[in-house]
Amino acid sequence: MAMPFSTRRLIRFSHCDPAGIVFFVNFFEMISGIVEDWFRDAVGLPFQEMHLERRVGFPIVNTGCEFLRPCHLGDTLVLELSIARLGRASIEFDIRGRVGGDEKFRARHKVAMVSLETFRSMAIPEDMRAKMLPYCETRPAGR
Amino acid sequence: MAMPFSTRRLIRFSHCDPAGIVFFVNFFEMISGIVEDWFRDAVGLPFQEMHLERRVGFPIVNTGCEFLRPCHLGDTLVLELSIARLGRASIEFDIRGRVGGDEKFRARHKVAMVSLETFRSMAIPEDMRAKMLPYCETRPAGR
Amino acid sequence: MAMPFSTRRLIRFSHCDPAGIVFFVNFFEMISGIVEDWFRDAVGLPFQEMHLERRVGFPIVNTGCEFLRPCHLGDTLVLELSIARLGRASIEFDIRGRVGGDEKFRARHKVAMVSLETFRSMAIPEDMRAKMLPYCETRPAGR
Amino acid sequence: MAMPFSTRRLIRFSHCDPAGIVFFVNFFEMISGIVEDWFRDAVGLPFQEMHLERRVGFPIVNTGCEFLRPCHLGDTLVLELSIARLGRASIEFDIRGRVGGDEKFRARHKVAMVSLETFRSMAIPEDMRAKMLPYCETRPAGR
Repeated sequence: MAMPFSTRRLIRFSHCDPAGIVFFVNFFEMISGIVEDWFRDAVGLPFQEMHLERRVGFPIVNTGCEFLRPCHLGDTLVLELSIARLGRASIEFDIRGRVGGDEKFRARHKVAMVSLETFRSMAIPEDMRAKMLPYCETRPAGR
Repeated sequence: MAMPFSTRRLIRFSHCDPAGIVFFVNFFEMISGIVEDWFRDAVGLPFQEMHLERRVGFPIVNTGCEFLRPCHLGDTLVLELSIARLGRASIEFDIRGRVGGDEKFRARHKVAMVSLETFRSMAIPEDMRAKMLPYCETRPAGR
Repeated sequence: MAMPFSTRRLIRFSHCDPAGIVFFVNFFEMISGIVEDWFRDAVGLPFQEMHLERRVGFPIVNTGCEFLRPCHLGDTLVLELSIARLGRASIEFDIRGRVGGDEKFRARHKVAMVSLETFRSMAIPEDMRAKMLPYCETRPAGR
Repeated sequence: MAMPFSTRRLIRFSHCDPAGIVFFVNFFEMISGIVEDWFRDAVGLPFQEMHLERRVGFPIVNTGCEFLRPCHLGDTLVLELSIARLGRASIEFDIRGRVGGDEKFRARHKVAMVSLETFRSMAIPEDMRAKMLPYCETRPAGR
């Protein structure tokens, strides 16, 4: 069973558009944020260490988001991340946002590991992989 | 044959991340920008007029983007918008970004027309629709 | 004695520029954020309530910031807000950011209260004022 | 006599806040943008070349802005940059924004030249300086 990784974001004035609701672009910034938080808190790999010490990065391959209901100033948005598919060199996240029981958005966000030395794709090392497994929605395929 | 609507964006310092390439979130801001430009210049409907005078809006239903190659500071990104599917009350845009012949991203971005009086979906009026048709990749279905 | 209002912000990837340090524009977003937090948590006036129920706003008159040292990805920035001058209808904030004992920026940020009915300046009501007083660096002048 | 450097920015949906006017933080992004444009078009030094080839940078020392009138969606903001003070190693810009004859903001924005090799302040070389002089409001002092 997947254990979702969860964070909270208070919806601020700066997130909102002239309609008084979250401008959709800011949801992508929040998606970026929870992935960064997950790497730091769940995988034990803060971005600065990942980039400078391990010399690897996780560029984004694709991302898609369905916007279900508007989100308002003052809302506390609960973000939940799990892994829909853990590949050899890639991770496809399932990220959702809700306010109370009200689902606001549902995203798929795929990143792939690259070496910052060669800029080529590389397999996720076993030590990182082990820390990612608990967040997989189902058993990883193809292994 | 579709006639793409095209704009240019110079990649600035503020678009770039610590890796020196465009932060993916900023591509969504550019996608939002070309849609706004298209409504103003092609459909003849600037957002302020759309919202205040026509009392309609086009909230985003879903958006997805494939990131093909990194984009760098100083690049001139050419954005091209066409309509993949023009529904009764919705528009699904096909939006691409390239630098010279180098494709950088490819997005699908779907919006749906709503009345700002009732917040309910409404059919795109014929006068607007006529101005949208030239940007359709194929003849609109279901009409 | 002033009691500063304090919040923390983790410096994320999205805050940083190609030089790997916080892009100065993002410090202004953080300044905006701590003012919003202070209105909510210290004055008891969340922005949505201020705007919709009390029908008042606090537009920005001027802001200035000295950037003392660069701030890096992964830093925990401590923000501190106090009031340098509480006028009849205006508040001049003194806002500082530091990482540990290292001061990063120092800002002055002045807002003025307006009625959202008349868009004219109005005196800060006594109930709000009483909650602001503990954050004044010195006794308010001209009262 | 100063010759101001001028650019235009269309005010977009993404620049505006729930009050329907430009969120002040976005004016700082525009200030950053006109400085970048001026370095490229007037001084002949695009940022990527400045950073990678000349190995110099211009970090921001301080910035201050007075917000005179709100700016709205659909406005064409004319930005004007001149140099209030050209120091040995620093430049203090005077940057204004107006819509038609209506002044919207007035900023002072000071940057200082540093070597990216030593991270120490360095004098602006004569070749760059010569291209900056036409934008000075008055004859540079202390030379």
